[in-house]
Amino acid sequence: MRDVAIVGVGMTRFGKFLDRSMKDLAREAVDAALDSAGIEKRAIEAAVVGNAVAGLITGQECIRGQVVLREMGIGGIPIINTENACASSSTALHLAWLYVASGMYDVALAVGMEKLYHEDKKRSFQAIGAAVDIEAMRQIMDLMAASAPKREGSGGGEGAGEKRSMFMDLYAMAARGHMARYGTTKEQFARVAVKNHYHGSLNPHAQYRERYTLEEILASPLVAEPLTRLMCSPIGDGAAAAIIVPADKARQYTSKPVFIRASVVGSGQDHVPGEPGITERVSHRAYEMAGVTPRDLNVVELHDASAPAELVLYEELGLCAPGEGGKLIDTGFTELTGPTPVNTSGGLISKGHPIGATGVGQVCEVFWQLRGECGDRQVPGAKLGLCENGGGMLRGEAAALAVHILST
Amino acid sequence: MRDVAIVGVGMTRFGKFLDRSMKDLAREAVDAALDSAGIEKRAIEAAVVGNAVAGLITGQECIRGQVVLREMGIGGIPIINTENACASSSTALHLAWLYVASGMYDVALAVGMEKLYHEDKKRSFQAIGAAVDIEAMRQIMDLMAASAPKREGSGGGEGAGEKRSMFMDLYAMAARGHMARYGTTKEQFARVAVKNHYHGSLNPHAQYRERYTLEEILASPLVAEPLTRLMCSPIGDGAAAAIIVPADKARQYTSKPVFIRASVVGSGQDHVPGEPGITERVSHRAYEMAGVTPRDLNVVELHDASAPAELVLYEELGLCAPGEGGKLIDTGFTELTGPTPVNTSGGLISKGHPIGATGVGQVCEVFWQLRGECGDRQVPGAKLGLCENGGGMLRGEAAALAVHILST
Repeated sequence: MRDVAIVGVGMTRFGKFLDRSMKDLAREAVDAALDSAGIEKRAIEAAVVGNAVAGLITGQECIRGQVVLREMGIGGIPIINTENACASSSTALHLAWLYVASGMYDVALAVGMEKLYHEDKKRSFQAIGAAVDIEAMRQIMDLMAASAPKREGSGGGEGAGEKRSMFMDLYAMAARGHMARYGTTKEQFARVAVKNHYHGSLNPHAQYRERYTLEEILASPLVAEPLTRLMCSPIGDGAAAAIIVPADKARQYTSKPVFIRASVVGSGQDHVPGEPGITERVSHRAYEMAGVTPRDLNVVELHDASAPAELVLYEELGLCAPGEGGKLIDTGFTELTGPTPVNTSGGLISKGHPIGATGVGQVCEVFWQLRGECGDRQVPGAKLGLCENGGGMLRGEAAALAVHILST
Repeated sequence: MRDVAIVGVGMTRFGKFLDRSMKDLAREAVDAALDSAGIEKRAIEAAVVGNAVAGLITGQECIRGQVVLREMGIGGIPIINTENACASSSTALHLAWLYVASGMYDVALAVGMEKLYHEDKKRSFQAIGAAVDIEAMRQIMDLMAASAPKREGSGGGEGAGEKRSMFMDLYAMAARGHMARYGTTKEQFARVAVKNHYHGSLNPHAQYRERYTLEEILASPLVAEPLTRLMCSPIGDGAAAAIIVPADKARQYTSKPVFIRASVVGSGQDHVPGEPGITERVSHRAYEMAGVTPRDLNVVELHDASAPAELVLYEELGLCAPGEGGKLIDTGFTELTGPTPVNTSGGLISKGHPIGATGVGQVCEVFWQLRGECGDRQVPGAKLGLCENGGGMLRGEAAALAVHILST
């Protein structure tokens, strides 16, 4: 397989855009990626489009990618529509990478896009609920109801007060398990949120740009013990895009290509206690493919759908030993000034989480970091970055998970 | 890129299975494909799953493939969910092919699956309607209403009497255009239906197995002039699966591998009159990739969503010159006993059209034909076959289209 590079990326700000269509959001992201790469639309030979829930939000199923790309004059080429819940667009990037790495096409476009906000917010939360086995969902909810101390009517992010994603219940349960097993504290989870909100305050693409103290994070409304609202990713709208070419042609387009050193997608399996979970398995393969170790990483974007998830992912990605995520956040290791800054974009918590756009959105951030284009949130001299994007939930593991490793 | 072979396929009968879940249908198809290949589940290294409308029919969006495959013990591996309207599973096959052709994986599973029947049939037809730009749909329907002589309440296939797919209006309009331009007759369209219903009568996997005379086809209820009900594909449920490996490893699994000589996906573009349309463009590339011409084909499965569509596709695939589709059907060229039998399975009209399953279902038929396993409908000595699978509609062209060329 050929070496592959990203030569341009673009994204909208993530946010609540009730007055903007998905076509409009996707156009902004794709145009920005094309500008970034200095490539004309007609040079694109294949496109892969990730979206998770347009079918449930707007009724637009089946040909989501064609509908948005044709609107901006991109057609004729293969357009592949893919979904993998919250990992939809990292899956799209993986397939676009595969098109180029295989030698089949020389210029591929990966797009992630989502319109999650709907005037009826209940519909937004119902749509997110499709990222599980819906037949089994009722049973899971019953289990949650039996095991979790929680408040009625609280929500994740801005969804508070109406409905919330059942995923926050799952994250809260996992967080309580981590606390019981390793002595992790609610303050340590809150520290993740302080960090990511601070990073997001430096990112013009972030949905929320406020900074918060530890006390403010802890004092925000409870979603499900120990999660407070400011520890949870909000729902959001947005789009992100990347242009992928063979490594040996990358310098035709840019003097600063970013190379895809690894692209791996995995799915969950029935988990054997003590055996590696999905994140360990997928990231292990990605590290092997790239020939690097977690210690080599200068910057990481990971799937902090909630603050505890980030802390657990430190361990699963090998940034620290199992059970030591709490200690890691306490040392400042993953802060902007630390050895391996994590979620410099603000992460899902602050940058936002328009689910089908999140994966390519992460790649935008690492692309910019590796090119030294991140302004106030720049990690000096970043040369190697990792993006981890999980999606859905099935029998206690993420249903899908993608890891990309990028380098200068 | 490596040469690639199919070493096993399996499918359910297509039909109306209100009492069977998509999990159940997919399990039957995948188990049959595994049996056919003599491969254990745990040997599968990657899976790509095509489905078009489960999000709209059942609410199961996001992780459709994981939900059905995990249920049968397939997990851990990459599971890619893809949709491209009626071409969803040929797109899945294309991606599974790409995984193997690229060298990334050695054993890939492609699955197509659909549960289109719903107790509320209106929901089934609304779901099919998502295969267009839904924002633009109302305008298209207004155009149709202004231009077409049609009867209220008639339907496509078994949907008659309640609702129908708007696609039949589009097919009817195209058929009237062909009649006006080339003198094609309604009888010629009916002859396609006679042929495909006859072929379907020989196929145990077909949804409908009745034979009809030309007079019976013409006398069946009018859907939209010139289409009668028996010229239209029905809605249906079903699943189909194929196992793909590198060509040089194929004989580890079977003494009769079927090789994928070309796998091409395309999308529509704003059509310039006189320029090749999507089918010409995609099939031209596939013929080039395979190094064959239409005259070399021994068997063809094509997307006869309606009888006129088959006749037009003869021309677009190069089986005859433009405008001569009517003459071709009159000569018997595409009958089971003709030089290039088309839709020996019964095609979408008789075998059925569970949209996300149709593409891999076509591949099952050609696989069996090339292995000499088609019993009463066997094309003697078939060595080269083509599958053409279209999906969705956007600005007057199919939104997606896939062509696969297979050989012994």
